[in-house]
Amino acid sequence: MSFTVLAREGETRARCGRLETRHGPIQTPVFMPVGTVGTVKTLSPEELKTLGVEVILGNAYHLYLRPGHQLIAELGGLHRFISWDRPILTDSGGYQVFSLAELCKVTEEGATFQSHLDGSLHFFSPEFVIEIQEALGADIIMALDECLPYPSSREATRDALDRTIQWARRCKQAHQRRDQMLFGIVQGGFYPELRREAALRLLDVGFEGYALGGLSVGETPSMMREVVDQVVPLLPEERPRYLMGVGMPEDLLECVTRGIDMFDCVIPTRHARTGWLFTSFGRVVIKNARYARDESPLDPACDCTTCRHFSRAYLRHLFMAQETLALRLNTIHNLHYYLRLMEQIRQAIREGRLAQYREEFYRMRCEA
Amino acid sequence: MSFTVLAREGETRARCGRLETRHGPIQTPVFMPVGTVGTVKTLSPEELKTLGVEVILGNAYHLYLRPGHQLIAELGGLHRFISWDRPILTDSGGYQVFSLAELCKVTEEGATFQSHLDGSLHFFSPEFVIEIQEALGADIIMALDECLPYPSSREATRDALDRTIQWARRCKQAHQRRDQMLFGIVQGGFYPELRREAALRLLDVGFEGYALGGLSVGETPSMMREVVDQVVPLLPEERPRYLMGVGMPEDLLECVTRGIDMFDCVIPTRHARTGWLFTSFGRVVIKNARYARDESPLDPACDCTTCRHFSRAYLRHLFMAQETLALRLNTIHNLHYYLRLMEQIRQAIREGRLAQYREEFYRMRCEA
Repeated sequence: MSFTVLAREGETRARCGRLETRHGPIQTPVFMPVGTVGTVKTLSPEELKTLGVEVILGNAYHLYLRPGHQLIAELGGLHRFISWDRPILTDSGGYQVFSLAELCKVTEEGATFQSHLDGSLHFFSPEFVIEIQEALGADIIMALDECLPYPSSREATRDALDRTIQWARRCKQAHQRRDQMLFGIVQGGFYPELRREAALRLLDVGFEGYALGGLSVGETPSMMREVVDQVVPLLPEERPRYLMGVGMPEDLLECVTRGIDMFDCVIPTRHARTGWLFTSFGRVVIKNARYARDESPLDPACDCTTCRHFSRAYLRHLFMAQETLALRLNTIHNLHYYLRLMEQIRQAIREGRLAQYREEFYRMRCEA
Repeated sequence: MSFTVLAREGETRARCGRLETRHGPIQTPVFMPVGTVGTVKTLSPEELKTLGVEVILGNAYHLYLRPGHQLIAELGGLHRFISWDRPILTDSGGYQVFSLAELCKVTEEGATFQSHLDGSLHFFSPEFVIEIQEALGADIIMALDECLPYPSSREATRDALDRTIQWARRCKQAHQRRDQMLFGIVQGGFYPELRREAALRLLDVGFEGYALGGLSVGETPSMMREVVDQVVPLLPEERPRYLMGVGMPEDLLECVTRGIDMFDCVIPTRHARTGWLFTSFGRVVIKNARYARDESPLDPACDCTTCRHFSRAYLRHLFMAQETLALRLNTIHNLHYYLRLMEQIRQAIREGRLAQYREEFYRMRCEA
């Protein structure tokens, strides 16, 4: 397991790299589709491979609750359970505990919460979250963090930061599996000096990769980018940088430019299921009546399975008739869009023309 | 367009045939998956082809209501609209009008009904049903019939039979497209002499194929088989015989033996979506807790994509988590089961060992 920077873009912080895992390599910058409960919703592993997906994300919180990390361990681990032989990253459950679970109570020891499924009571300590993730057996795992919404007071942010650092230390201590990379998470909210402190103290603990957490929690895109601008220069060049839960296509482009290597987000998959589709000329809301008789592909510039085989009229019909095939065809298209975007970004970095690529990216959307 | 009987099973009425259409051949006996609104629920056309599906069914009633037959005609017909280049059969909507729509009122002229979608009022005459099906452009289309539930009085059955024959005549008269085969439907309920009369009068009108309608409407399997036994001997050897809306695997086997060439039914696809799976050793209800830690494939004797790649434990997990991938993997398996059953039946007929095959079929289920 190692991370190598292969190319840098002179005028920005953007870079191309290669993350080696025991389930194969990941080319960065990378977008990781979210497979919450052991499936990227609507898609099979085979379809993900056809799309060129190199790594998917699994949620420790969801898999712990259902079907249970021990059951998955008994059945040979998450890769085998879901029939996916490429890399997996699992998050620690920190974000879900604070955003999804009910009645969450945090102490120094950990977080007590009620399951969103049945209201049952659970407790996540840093040690237990590592135990869960070791049982799942992902290639990259995350330390437990305390994630706050925006806005949060300086005091609450400071407390969460302190706890996150302590928990990070305990996670590192507890982590045994040498075939997994453990990443720490920089918190600190929207207070530059707290972000700085969080980064420096986390570096002091020392991790194989560094994530920026506590973003996409209600702030504006420009605030999110400012935090990235503050934190990235503090992180070591030789470690991967992962921006958690972000974002829209333009966020990916802007944050790669600011030095981010890894992204995950439910936007392409969740938006697909609501009929919001990403195209080279901007957004398409497929249920719009204007597509009822439209024989053209969703995006004539796209070569995904959906665009190669089906018309806008058919996609709209399936969506209006609430057919599950609609969700799948939409998901294939949106993920293809995200993956192709990252591929183009990587190529632009390697060829030293990222600025030009950005300009084209925005021009195409404005002209449409 | 033609139908050729290629092999007969000496001791039974079973036969193998080949139905030629402008979208390619159909080997009979055949099972036709139901693609109600222009998709076999959860599956893509590519997956249907991988499964070996040679013909699918579309519902004139559903497609007329949404997205509309004229829209589909404008977009080049149903095959093109749904990206399926193999044969399609559309039913006339008779069954849906009487079973699904609200406030159906029948006169000699036709049937007035309210849409199940929005309560809007519609009128199906024999001529209009042919117009719809010509617009959709299926390879095989059906005459409008009046379909009664079981039980129905002799008088109601007799009236429905008279109307069905008159409507069949008008359908034949109205039908213009020479690239479509038009099938008539034998009604007559569960009154042997009415079934006989229906068959003879329909033969008198003359169709390219004959369907048995009004079955699977609440009667027992043995009553259904009795009707097949009564009607089939009255039908011409050189025309395909289609048993509408049937059935369970054993129904297919029993009715092939009784001389049926074509079947359609929602059972494999609908049962799949409720977690009811067909296997070589009988039914599997995948949500059963006994499968939670079961690493074996759904059916070790099956070579479908689902059984080759996923465990019962994972299928159960997906189903419990209400993931749409569960519905798809289940549908693939159940359709594979039905298609393989028909393939084995065809082979047994060709090799003159259908009795032996039936015996094995039942023995395997009893032993399990």
